[in-house]
Amino acid sequence: MFAPDELTDDGFLGGRLRVLQPRKGYRAATDPVFLAAAVAAQPGQAVLELGCGAGVASLCLAARVPGLVQAGLELQPAYADLARRNAARNGLPLEVLEGDLAVMPAPLRARCFDHVIANPPFYPAGGGTAAADAGRETAQREATPLADWVEAGLRRLHPGGWLTIIQEAHRLPDLLVALSARAGSITALPLMARAGRPVGRVIVQARKGGRGRFTLAAPLLLHEGAAHDGDRDSHSDMAAAILRKGAALDIRAGGGALPRTG
Amino acid sequence: MFAPDELTDDGFLGGRLRVLQPRKGYRAATDPVFLAAAVAAQPGQAVLELGCGAGVASLCLAARVPGLVQAGLELQPAYADLARRNAARNGLPLEVLEGDLAVMPAPLRARCFDHVIANPPFYPAGGGTAAADAGRETAQREATPLADWVEAGLRRLHPGGWLTIIQEAHRLPDLLVALSARAGSITALPLMARAGRPVGRVIVQARKGGRGRFTLAAPLLLHEGAAHDGDRDSHSDMAAAILRKGAALDIRAGGGALPRTG
Repeated sequence: MFAPDELTDDGFLGGRLRVLQPRKGYRAATDPVFLAAAVAAQPGQAVLELGCGAGVASLCLAARVPGLVQAGLELQPAYADLARRNAARNGLPLEVLEGDLAVMPAPLRARCFDHVIANPPFYPAGGGTAAADAGRETAQREATPLADWVEAGLRRLHPGGWLTIIQEAHRLPDLLVALSARAGSITALPLMARAGRPVGRVIVQARKGGRGRFTLAAPLLLHEGAAHDGDRDSHSDMAAAILRKGAALDIRAGGGALPRTG
Repeated sequence: MFAPDELTDDGFLGGRLRVLQPRKGYRAATDPVFLAAAVAAQPGQAVLELGCGAGVASLCLAARVPGLVQAGLELQPAYADLARRNAARNGLPLEVLEGDLAVMPAPLRARCFDHVIANPPFYPAGGGTAAADAGRETAQREATPLADWVEAGLRRLHPGGWLTIIQEAHRLPDLLVALSARAGSITALPLMARAGRPVGRVIVQARKGGRGRFTLAAPLLLHEGAAHDGDRDSHSDMAAAILRKGAALDIRAGGGALPRTG
């Protein structure tokens, strides 16, 4: 477990959510917030997060949609402990289970969900330099192949349930290949840091057994302006509404409110 | 063959290219022009177009890059004949072969190319309503699966050669699945009709045997303004430069000059 001086207490959704995170480990930024915003869960539905870390995505979703039945699966006990504490201190219901999604714990194998969400590690196994912090390394490095995240997520869904994943845009082909056999009605929403730059992140949402065709949604622009000039004040209106007010993100409409150019 | 009164004589690239097209059959619009713009061919290189129709994409490329060795394969003899006539009347070198890419003609099987380009039919076999015109039906309906276009294109490339395909954005997963085994260094460039709308087309470029990671390029915005108000005058600066002046399109930079928002 983390010692108190190893933790920071951070605000999300404009301070509505207070989250303990390791000072040096894997720290949630905006990805889990966008992930939660893109999940069109309805009160009463069951939601599972694979690799929930300190719980930010699940808790952002709980803060927006009351009455969900939420579970999170986390490999690292210290992060699972943080997720439980973060749920309790925000008064939000999140059941946290410890375990490896590649060897799904029996209590989860027995259950099905309406939504499965995940923010899998970004970096493929074996490449690059390991993170200095072991917890961050585990959270960011792909020990479990991305295809296994997709497979584990689809298995835990009811037929017609939705899998929502945020990932580096570089991994879009891997995601689509993994999804193509057992899911459909796929939407990919590009998140563009700034206009004119290559897309950095994608949120991909797919329906188990869905037969609808693929949609590439209009990109969501995260920052106004061409250069980095202090991110906190440069967020686009839509990004700010999601990050600071907990607004929902209609993934098919995507960045539908992208300001007109001219 | 088409009778003279079955043809129209249309200008492309601001009138620099004059193209005979069937009045009622498959008519090229902007897709082949964007396809040609995205091919970074160098003088002296060999380029093959699969399903060249009346030749618009290949001739746009020839008009921009002198000294290419270009071949086009076309299934329908009447369109192959038009492509030959269009090459001759514009004084551009394009060898047109008749045949089915699923049964590659022997003269092409013996050759390899630096670039293969294609604008395959958009509509999967078996769905929807057939076009009233048989030639348009063949040009638009997918008798040959999209994966076979990819496979035929990759086979005709030198190692390290580039395959460039324009397609409906709905087919992006099919393209990426087909490419993933034998190609890499893939870039997908979304073409957005208007800001905030789902992406209509993608240009996908992949390198045979490439190992670079996937890039989702910044979208190219085709029209300014939120509503359809006469397409000819509403093109974005970048789209107009490509369509009317034959400018090249750097696919990795994508819509890099997308005007700033705000």
